[in-house]
Amino acid sequence: MTITARAVHLAERPVGLPTDATWSIQTRDLAPPKDGEVLVKPTHLSIDPAMRGWVREAHVYMPTLAIGDVMHAFGIATVLESRHPSFQPGDTVSGLLGVTDHANIRGDALTPVDLSLAPAPTWLGALGQTGITAWFGLFDVAKAKPGDTVLISGAAGAVGSVAGQLAKAHGCHVIGIAGGQQKTRWLTDELGFDAAVDYKNGDIYEQVRAAAGQGIDCFLDNVGGDALNAALAVLNQGARVAICGAISTYNATDPIVGPSNYLSLLRKRASMAGFLVFDYEDRYSEAVEGLTALMGEGRLVSPEHVVAGGVDRFPEALLMLYNGLNTGKLVLEM
Amino acid sequence: MTITARAVHLAERPVGLPTDATWSIQTRDLAPPKDGEVLVKPTHLSIDPAMRGWVREAHVYMPTLAIGDVMHAFGIATVLESRHPSFQPGDTVSGLLGVTDHANIRGDALTPVDLSLAPAPTWLGALGQTGITAWFGLFDVAKAKPGDTVLISGAAGAVGSVAGQLAKAHGCHVIGIAGGQQKTRWLTDELGFDAAVDYKNGDIYEQVRAAAGQGIDCFLDNVGGDALNAALAVLNQGARVAICGAISTYNATDPIVGPSNYLSLLRKRASMAGFLVFDYEDRYSEAVEGLTALMGEGRLVSPEHVVAGGVDRFPEALLMLYNGLNTGKLVLEM
Repeated sequence: MTITARAVHLAERPVGLPTDATWSIQTRDLAPPKDGEVLVKPTHLSIDPAMRGWVREAHVYMPTLAIGDVMHAFGIATVLESRHPSFQPGDTVSGLLGVTDHANIRGDALTPVDLSLAPAPTWLGALGQTGITAWFGLFDVAKAKPGDTVLISGAAGAVGSVAGQLAKAHGCHVIGIAGGQQKTRWLTDELGFDAAVDYKNGDIYEQVRAAAGQGIDCFLDNVGGDALNAALAVLNQGARVAICGAISTYNATDPIVGPSNYLSLLRKRASMAGFLVFDYEDRYSEAVEGLTALMGEGRLVSPEHVVAGGVDRFPEALLMLYNGLNTGKLVLEM
Repeated sequence: MTITARAVHLAERPVGLPTDATWSIQTRDLAPPKDGEVLVKPTHLSIDPAMRGWVREAHVYMPTLAIGDVMHAFGIATVLESRHPSFQPGDTVSGLLGVTDHANIRGDALTPVDLSLAPAPTWLGALGQTGITAWFGLFDVAKAKPGDTVLISGAAGAVGSVAGQLAKAHGCHVIGIAGGQQKTRWLTDELGFDAAVDYKNGDIYEQVRAAAGQGIDCFLDNVGGDALNAALAVLNQGARVAICGAISTYNATDPIVGPSNYLSLLRKRASMAGFLVFDYEDRYSEAVEGLTALMGEGRLVSPEHVVAGGVDRFPEALLMLYNGLNTGKLVLEM
């Protein structure tokens, strides 16, 4: 039996926002899995802001993509055929699968997934790297304590929407920054945020200052730009800023504008640190246990935005992120 | 006996660099010390880059100066008359004295100084707040470990010149950034720095990159601007940036340019933190013991730049800092 794989390949490195010319969607025959490999059929792919970085010439934590390579994507898949002792046909797994409807993946790089505990999108959302990023960003990097005021940018996004719920469950006062009244209402009415700032409706600096009241102790930044700069202006003494991402900069063709308020770090004896969830691999189980417990108690929901259509919808789904069209974790259903 | 005090008063808040119009030098009669106060005659004043901040409308960690107030300065003084049980005439003390040749200071705010251990300028330099700032900046904030590559901006200045020697004594590879060949040679030939970058002679980004080799683990920033941005570009994974100051920005009339390379913090899982030495008051003795021991072993010198002339030379001495005319700790002899 010949297996064909329909996949999104990198056709050219984008300048600014990816376009149709960035990608080439091709169908090719797939060789049978080699010893140690597993033939998988992805069912759900995680669409991540960081993907814009993955197509750059040189990337720091992912294998650099050459022109013609299948685009990276994390996802959930069903095992069709296994030449690895840990997996059998019918198993559900997660891993770095690529934007493809079939792939041979080294079994050692796959993790078993238990769909009886949660559906596939949730394993990419609150119980996946998204939730784990929120967990360590909030508790390990930003060191949120009960009573802290926690500000989150990209609050209606994948990481932000989980982080805000975690902060609330931890006894923090939580403020989100998001774009549009629909999102800010969702944050306060559905997710329990104490306040939300609509950066599309008025001056973000004034709004953040008004919402912060006496100031903020923690800031989780997924956006960069004015959101970061506005947050720096309202730091409390000893505040912690966790840089999770900077989606506002990923497609920028102009030079990045640095945060002019960075000297607040000096005046307020505050700190700003970047992190990558991959560095916490040894401690994933700690986060997943905590996240699972909160979901079990009904104190955490996994906001997911599932787009159907498989491989061919990938280019459009990716742009949804940068245009702010998703609410919660964006998942491509295959 | 009437005591007169000749002092530098704040005449107007400067825009940009302080000018003669910023200050008013006046001689006034001084009331006798009240109960709990000590009449002191300053012998040496510490001239600090932070002084530019102290004359702003609102300041975060020093009492705000009103127009007409005597300018703040830390210094060393001789006790002339004491109405505080801890001090007697002839004692040497340190504290926030002001730019004045006589002052009544609360005894509780003064610290005894032992001139048999080190001369007065050294108590403002390596054994004073300068050395203590270098100590905690390097070991507590930047967490320098033996084998680390440590980059220091303003390396020929008060804090930088001590920090570099401390880092060398700690087994680090030390690179300094300073302005002019005289300073960079002094760093490598006299203070034992491994390398020095002359930001006035060529592109600071290229030079820092070349000097850093494989990258830097610690950065002590006294300067801001391009020095900070160049350092961010060469961070190693897990690097620590300590913001001690930002002398390049203190007199700026244009908006501060933030560090556009701040996303290195994310890519390199690095951190950047500001600190004020005053926050370490409970641990000063720890630093002073360590600094004293290193001086005793001949592994630390206290580079001092002493300017004579007393109160009247203060305006000129202060400008020396911002024009890069000092090497080591700038001290005004009274």
